[in-house]
Amino acid sequence: MATNPLAPAWLRLPADANVLADGLWPATAARTPQGELLIGGCTAAALAAEFGTPLYLIDETDARARAASLRAAFETEFARIGTSVHIYYAGKAFLSTEIARWMLAEGLNIDICSGGELAVALAAGSPPNRIGYHGNNKSLAEIDEACRVGVGTIVIDSPVEIGRVAAAAARHGIVQAVRLRVNSGVHAHTHEFLATAHEDQKFGVTLDDAPALVGRIRAEPSLAFRGLHCHIGSQIFGADGFAESASRLLAVHAALLDGGPVPELNLGGGFGIAYTSADTPTPIGELAASLADIVAAECGTRGIPVPVVAFEPGRYIIGPAGITLYEVGTTKAVDVAGNPRLYVSVDGGMSDNARPALYGADYTVRLAGRVSAAEPVLVRLAGKHCESGDIVVDADYLPADVSPGDLVAVAATGAYCWSLSNNYNFLGRPAVVAVAEGTPRMLVRGETIADLLARDTGVGAGSTTAGSTTADSTADLPKEPSR
Amino acid sequence: MATNPLAPAWLRLPADANVLADGLWPATAARTPQGELLIGGCTAAALAAEFGTPLYLIDETDARARAASLRAAFETEFARIGTSVHIYYAGKAFLSTEIARWMLAEGLNIDICSGGELAVALAAGSPPNRIGYHGNNKSLAEIDEACRVGVGTIVIDSPVEIGRVAAAAARHGIVQAVRLRVNSGVHAHTHEFLATAHEDQKFGVTLDDAPALVGRIRAEPSLAFRGLHCHIGSQIFGADGFAESASRLLAVHAALLDGGPVPELNLGGGFGIAYTSADTPTPIGELAASLADIVAAECGTRGIPVPVVAFEPGRYIIGPAGITLYEVGTTKAVDVAGNPRLYVSVDGGMSDNARPALYGADYTVRLAGRVSAAEPVLVRLAGKHCESGDIVVDADYLPADVSPGDLVAVAATGAYCWSLSNNYNFLGRPAVVAVAEGTPRMLVRGETIADLLARDTGVGAGSTTAGSTTADSTADLPKEPSR
Repeated sequence: MATNPLAPAWLRLPADANVLADGLWPATAARTPQGELLIGGCTAAALAAEFGTPLYLIDETDARARAASLRAAFETEFARIGTSVHIYYAGKAFLSTEIARWMLAEGLNIDICSGGELAVALAAGSPPNRIGYHGNNKSLAEIDEACRVGVGTIVIDSPVEIGRVAAAAARHGIVQAVRLRVNSGVHAHTHEFLATAHEDQKFGVTLDDAPALVGRIRAEPSLAFRGLHCHIGSQIFGADGFAESASRLLAVHAALLDGGPVPELNLGGGFGIAYTSADTPTPIGELAASLADIVAAECGTRGIPVPVVAFEPGRYIIGPAGITLYEVGTTKAVDVAGNPRLYVSVDGGMSDNARPALYGADYTVRLAGRVSAAEPVLVRLAGKHCESGDIVVDADYLPADVSPGDLVAVAATGAYCWSLSNNYNFLGRPAVVAVAEGTPRMLVRGETIADLLARDTGVGAGSTTAGSTTADSTADLPKEPSR
Repeated sequence: MATNPLAPAWLRLPADANVLADGLWPATAARTPQGELLIGGCTAAALAAEFGTPLYLIDETDARARAASLRAAFETEFARIGTSVHIYYAGKAFLSTEIARWMLAEGLNIDICSGGELAVALAAGSPPNRIGYHGNNKSLAEIDEACRVGVGTIVIDSPVEIGRVAAAAARHGIVQAVRLRVNSGVHAHTHEFLATAHEDQKFGVTLDDAPALVGRIRAEPSLAFRGLHCHIGSQIFGADGFAESASRLLAVHAALLDGGPVPELNLGGGFGIAYTSADTPTPIGELAASLADIVAAECGTRGIPVPVVAFEPGRYIIGPAGITLYEVGTTKAVDVAGNPRLYVSVDGGMSDNARPALYGADYTVRLAGRVSAAEPVLVRLAGKHCESGDIVVDADYLPADVSPGDLVAVAATGAYCWSLSNNYNFLGRPAVVAVAEGTPRMLVRGETIADLLARDTGVGAGSTTAGSTTADSTADLPKEPSR
């Protein structure tokens, strides 16, 4: 079979559309001798039978190992240049109490940006001083709560927040450690919507304004200045953007040393992962080494002490550890100017993975209940929402005999899928299940229709039918009728 | 002041950035003598004080009037050509039990596409036969439930669904009325992600395939064929797309009459609304007249009886009746190549309105708590999420003295904002409040942090702090510190 002209240029026709390509799937993902997808020692079919589909699965072993190996790599490389690192797990990628506990157990801190994320971190048992709080528009209530519980650091994002945080800290009789969010002007190579360091954006202050603002921070008796904070974007491959950003930040950092201590430098997150075989993220050890070299060189040039360096990875840790299981409901072959595309519609969609619609994000899909020797065909995995842009995987190859009833798995859905999930068309959000050593464990219960109606104040007021309608009420239907 | 070069070409510099432009705001929206925004007889400030911000507001009078006037316009015009119409409210735009009740009371039916939407319609007391059910991948359980409760019509979207619906109807001993979703090949002038009638998409079958499939439907004793169904896109201005689509559908419709009755034709929805002053939707009376003329002419040409015609508006009815109230938290002036832009950050964002990030949608914003004689400045209304693409209003003008603590209102958020809302960064979704004749009424309760943690199975397992953290716990904070 030749490459389908409808396929994007980056998508290669696989010799075998059953292969779980290295680097794309959770570390424990494999095929059983019968061809079933295995993750954390559990088969996809058993997980689907127990928890239903769609289903978010997190490979606990892999998530923890990625956190541990990232931390070890950065600790090793920065020890080499004579300093230490603080790694914050970026909770926005995927936060639940259990995931927060894993990160804490692996020696990471927790990065949050709202009162809700703070509540999760605290409910997970996080020591408050291991929490970093940032955001462009924290409410007064959120700032007050953060100071009350004693979070480790707060990132000041705008001039007005200096007074807000100082007042809250004073109210609670504490000295609050703070960072200042600056924009380095570096545009990391990434999707436009994810770039966060150029000037025309809501976050942060300019490097030019930083010295005066740090002066104001230092003048507040209830604030302790820790250092500059920057975030140059998301899903970044390579170290060039970080290098340029670190260089610019350290120039200002060095100048700030004249006015007092600057113990830290926070370079943010944004380490990219592979969503498809075309993605080639930098190995984390290489990235850590490059970043350490950059920081050492910049500090050396300027003759300043190497600060403690902080990073905030989220996607890197949790993204590749997660997959989503779906069941195929319908397929539809279309002909586009003489070329075939098979639409494969699953029982979820843009409600459980908004990233393709939001960012044009690409993903990888494989059969999860079996393998097949049928020739690979170009598919588009669509959801069940009432919207033609409801696409989960824009383009990949699956065996041509993919059919209703097949289980399929989408790789690398651990980050920003559950986080952005919604109830479009009143679809309940899937459960989140952790798997490890053959045992599944539910982290977050899935939503029922009853959940979706629970906040509607008009339920029961004028209903003419019993409220027994649930998606599960016909679970033992007869088998699929033949066409 | 001259037009800001950063402003998009369509955005005009207003003489007065306090004006509530005609056609953009709910019918009852007005300014009090003191300049406060009034909607449904309630001031924005009173609503914000009672229900908090962000807050979805629905002008009940306007929503019902839009439903009633649309129905009246179509009934009048199609009576003129000797037939009747069925109007289905497209629940995907915004569904709650109370909104469904309004639509039913105004003589509309309810269009749904999932078991969840079915549950809402039934909980609202909808007679099942006033419900139309469509979707590209209804589950077997959903089809069974639809037949069990007796929905009026089911739209068959693919060949495999013929057997599925026939089997479910037979199982419940009924004859199920069905439509067949076809693609007319018409590309309505719209955003690519919203276009749903071209061939390379998940919905429907080709017109060429329709006759054979209708033959199969007619051969099923448990199915009753009602007619063809089409949907050419969303946010469509003008009647040209509908005209071409109706013409193509009626050619096939006419041919189908040889095999039996074809009592209906369903032309779908997609009637556009104004989100900004640059949008000029066709007045609904003109659109109804054009569509009636088209259907009459096409039927006349073919010498066939004029069928009952069905339409499925959603956005048109509920979109302009809704606004979102926010409170400003921070502002930030940036300079882009010598031109100023003021970032105004509010207490919501892409979690309560995903459309700007999803579709590049534009919106209109005005001060809601006061008016101001300050000169208009170009603003970008941003949210509080940890993402630079978190934009609510990409570009509009507001008085230059807009400040933290100001209430602002975004127009035309009634459709697809609550529907697509999510909990990104663990922000609770806002309440939905209907206003009419000076009285607010909560339709959907807002989410608390406790709601967001309710499905996390690890809450309480290892927490070191009390679970009392809520966004409201510091509601009586001291006033905003000065800069």
